[in-house]
Amino acid sequence: MAARCQLTPVLRRLARSTTEVSRQPLLRQSLSRPVRHISTSRPRLFQRTAVSQKGEFTSEKYPDIQRDSRFAQVTPEHVKFFKDVLGSESAVIDGVTSDAADDIAPFNSDWMNKYRGHCRLVLKPGTTEEVSKILKYCNNNMLAVVPQGGNTGLVGGSVPVFDEIVINMSRMNKIIEFDEVSGILVAEAGTILEVADQFLASKGYIFPLDLGAKGSCHIGGNLATNAGGLRLLRYGSLHGTTLGIEAVLADGTIVDDLCKLRKNNTGYDLKQLFIGAEGTIGIITKVSIQCPQRSAAQNVALFGIESYELAQQAFREAKGQLGEILSAFELMDEGSQALVRQVTGNKSPLEEKYPFYCLIETSGSNAEHDAEKLQSFLEDVMEKGIVADGTLAENETQIRSLWTWREGITEALGHLGGVYKYDVSIPLKELYRMVEDVKARVDAAGLLGDTDEYPVRAVVGYGHMGDANLHLNVSTRRFDERVEKVLEPFVYEWIAERQGSISAEHGLGLMKKKYIGYSRNPTMVGLMKNIKTTFDPNGILNPYKYL
Amino acid sequence: MAARCQLTPVLRRLARSTTEVSRQPLLRQSLSRPVRHISTSRPRLFQRTAVSQKGEFTSEKYPDIQRDSRFAQVTPEHVKFFKDVLGSESAVIDGVTSDAADDIAPFNSDWMNKYRGHCRLVLKPGTTEEVSKILKYCNNNMLAVVPQGGNTGLVGGSVPVFDEIVINMSRMNKIIEFDEVSGILVAEAGTILEVADQFLASKGYIFPLDLGAKGSCHIGGNLATNAGGLRLLRYGSLHGTTLGIEAVLADGTIVDDLCKLRKNNTGYDLKQLFIGAEGTIGIITKVSIQCPQRSAAQNVALFGIESYELAQQAFREAKGQLGEILSAFELMDEGSQALVRQVTGNKSPLEEKYPFYCLIETSGSNAEHDAEKLQSFLEDVMEKGIVADGTLAENETQIRSLWTWREGITEALGHLGGVYKYDVSIPLKELYRMVEDVKARVDAAGLLGDTDEYPVRAVVGYGHMGDANLHLNVSTRRFDERVEKVLEPFVYEWIAERQGSISAEHGLGLMKKKYIGYSRNPTMVGLMKNIKTTFDPNGILNPYKYL
Repeated sequence: MAARCQLTPVLRRLARSTTEVSRQPLLRQSLSRPVRHISTSRPRLFQRTAVSQKGEFTSEKYPDIQRDSRFAQVTPEHVKFFKDVLGSESAVIDGVTSDAADDIAPFNSDWMNKYRGHCRLVLKPGTTEEVSKILKYCNNNMLAVVPQGGNTGLVGGSVPVFDEIVINMSRMNKIIEFDEVSGILVAEAGTILEVADQFLASKGYIFPLDLGAKGSCHIGGNLATNAGGLRLLRYGSLHGTTLGIEAVLADGTIVDDLCKLRKNNTGYDLKQLFIGAEGTIGIITKVSIQCPQRSAAQNVALFGIESYELAQQAFREAKGQLGEILSAFELMDEGSQALVRQVTGNKSPLEEKYPFYCLIETSGSNAEHDAEKLQSFLEDVMEKGIVADGTLAENETQIRSLWTWREGITEALGHLGGVYKYDVSIPLKELYRMVEDVKARVDAAGLLGDTDEYPVRAVVGYGHMGDANLHLNVSTRRFDERVEKVLEPFVYEWIAERQGSISAEHGLGLMKKKYIGYSRNPTMVGLMKNIKTTFDPNGILNPYKYL
Repeated sequence: MAARCQLTPVLRRLARSTTEVSRQPLLRQSLSRPVRHISTSRPRLFQRTAVSQKGEFTSEKYPDIQRDSRFAQVTPEHVKFFKDVLGSESAVIDGVTSDAADDIAPFNSDWMNKYRGHCRLVLKPGTTEEVSKILKYCNNNMLAVVPQGGNTGLVGGSVPVFDEIVINMSRMNKIIEFDEVSGILVAEAGTILEVADQFLASKGYIFPLDLGAKGSCHIGGNLATNAGGLRLLRYGSLHGTTLGIEAVLADGTIVDDLCKLRKNNTGYDLKQLFIGAEGTIGIITKVSIQCPQRSAAQNVALFGIESYELAQQAFREAKGQLGEILSAFELMDEGSQALVRQVTGNKSPLEEKYPFYCLIETSGSNAEHDAEKLQSFLEDVMEKGIVADGTLAENETQIRSLWTWREGITEALGHLGGVYKYDVSIPLKELYRMVEDVKARVDAAGLLGDTDEYPVRAVVGYGHMGDANLHLNVSTRRFDERVEKVLEPFVYEWIAERQGSISAEHGLGLMKKKYIGYSRNPTMVGLMKNIKTTFDPNGILNPYKYL
């Protein structure tokens, strides 16, 4: 149970006492009431379940996307080739020469059931050489493919649109080597993030990336989508931590750039192109990554804050005072928390409601030092009136509990019906104004309300404040064309005006392919198209998406 | 003066007393003797001075490199165009229509006088538009160019080989904007690293890169060469910290990717190609970079260590115990320190000589906590017999003093005559074995000795141990072909066998162009050549180098 306290009265009392006294572990003294009803484990949001086939086909939903007639249809002869290459029966799900609709369904749809393809063949290679043989054959026979990792993406990047062949990487899931002095991990692309992280934990290290889908997503997919997640603030982006990759190009060429060195200035850093390319220029088969030392101590605190202005101040103070131990600074608005309360029935860890909540995590090598830093930070932000109330987790269970208020938002929204999700970067100063502006706009259009007559239930915002990364979510009761019209292109234009990014960490996929112009100028897009053509002249890799 | 102490006897005594006592600031109690003669400021190794014109021309030294006849000679008509574009007289150093040999000399040679070109025209654009006009004209007229920053490189990348036009970026040196909440700095490419860092210091931030040449090198050049430096261990590589760039392509196209967001997953991360491209696909004109909070506290300690095995153990313990505050872990062998003592006449900060020395720096937000962590680390590594002796700096002056024993090596070597310098990455386990193997080989060939008859004075190793980055230096008394033959290709083959990098952080330039095959396979080199052709089809950017 998370420890709970009212900081303000205690601080006021202490202000009149000595400095020594005020350095005592203040928060741990006044644990008046345990927080109830918070589930004790971080939610596994993306566990694979049988995917409903009720979802509309992407091809019907987006009739303007036409199948590229240059691509061949998969024939029994093709299937025979792939079965010969992959040997094992279980490595091929064949819906071409047999009825395998049920088995293929989970590979045809994303976890939100938002996108659904017509794929009839799933291949699960077990080695890089098999990936190479598959792609070479596909390239020669003009067969389009979709590389697929854990299929936990949010923009429809990992599922087919038409009859593209799915190349699912789940069988390439071995940890190849780990150097305990340098912290360098080499693993196959299909390794599940959580598996990699648990392996690293046993060695005293940590994977430099953490996100809600960790139980299902693959590290290859993390690289392919340049996943950001919860601890980018501390460990930086995958562009910095990835040391090498092995990948297979469209024509089957194996690119061995599986460097296990922190520094290697010998030519263009080509691996960087694959990071965030969403499988459009090659399939990542192996990964070499620099892993940081796992911190011995971890603390998590949750605050109530009266305004976005004050949340910014809290962030600045946290950076300054917590410095090197700050590992996450997350923002949630009251709207998002109300939805979590509604769905889970859990009671808020704070007594009162506040317009904003911040979740701060510290990770350090010395528990005592970290507690002291956090303590002194808390006192300071309370004294300055930056933070109105707060609670500090006392153990691993409480830490997980507090995290559910941040990580549980996506799941809560999912339970309530359709959601328009925007994952954006905006310079920090204006980050939250976007939510306010969108809310006002939806409201002005008469679409937002508490009762069933309104299609929109709530417009909420939360995200990785430390990275200026906001998740704007519009929770709806039902599909209503008016909502979409009010939202788009307004949201994208709003972002473009502020030189923000229309996709901070989720990527482009199918969803944002046509909006790239809001964040990238024609020169950049032109250069990107050159890169695509250089690496995949036939365009067989993940067509209809990205650019 | 740096504080000095013999840790071992004190520790032995303390082992018998209470834990409380042993937590006292041990190192600060036993300051027996101040360190003498250490200069109090970090050396400025690369201050521009009038470069001697005695250096041999690169074209004579490497007769196998031929001028590419596709390139035009610079004519008075060309010069007139450039003068019209740049307006200001001081922006053009014209050795074509006038005698400007002396003025051009510093731009024709590197600081070591190892490379010397025949350039007769130096252009100093003041704006991105001017760079664009220059390049467009050069591309149309087949005029080859060399982009030049602070000209502090070590591989001949920033000086012409023949008559390439030098485009020197020193006039584009403005800091454009800084966001005090996010820590994002935007500046022109010609900003000197130290100037940027001092500006950031005034805001409580730090440039995420530090290196000996900071007083002269440009941040644009740092990006173009993917400079590594002293604190990569802590702040990661420029591939992670650079948020955006503006660059001009060979045909004059301005690529505006000056993103000021930590996260932006909208298409291929093209800026990454420019980082480490050494000016071969475009000229970086502006930089946007994520700067970390400047640490309030800094500590530096220097240790004597009996073997490379123990140095590795010390590194592992430092990572584990100092964790998030460790900001540098540098290795120096006794040979390198002997040369510093010889050149400076300074006395070692330790009483005895040891085969290895490690310099450890910590940077944190709380001086007391850091001192305690360092203290407890020191006690631990002394008790375990990992470290034989140590000294801890007590103030900024002493910190600088201790750093001179690491940063002064390059300068000391330079004073002693010719040096064969290899900047390599090798998996940590075998890092120092390279020095031993090379030393044995040079010795076996009868080339290494203390007297004048031997061409080689010393084979020494030092470097960024935290990054597995070794600087192997072979100090010579005079040029002797036999030395080169003993060293090459032996050194490169040795590295290739261990999948190391023949250029960890210095880049390829002219020096290592022909050795790239030792670190990159033909597939990779082929892809790189495609990239080069895509971006610079006429090959006017920095020819004769890199690939």
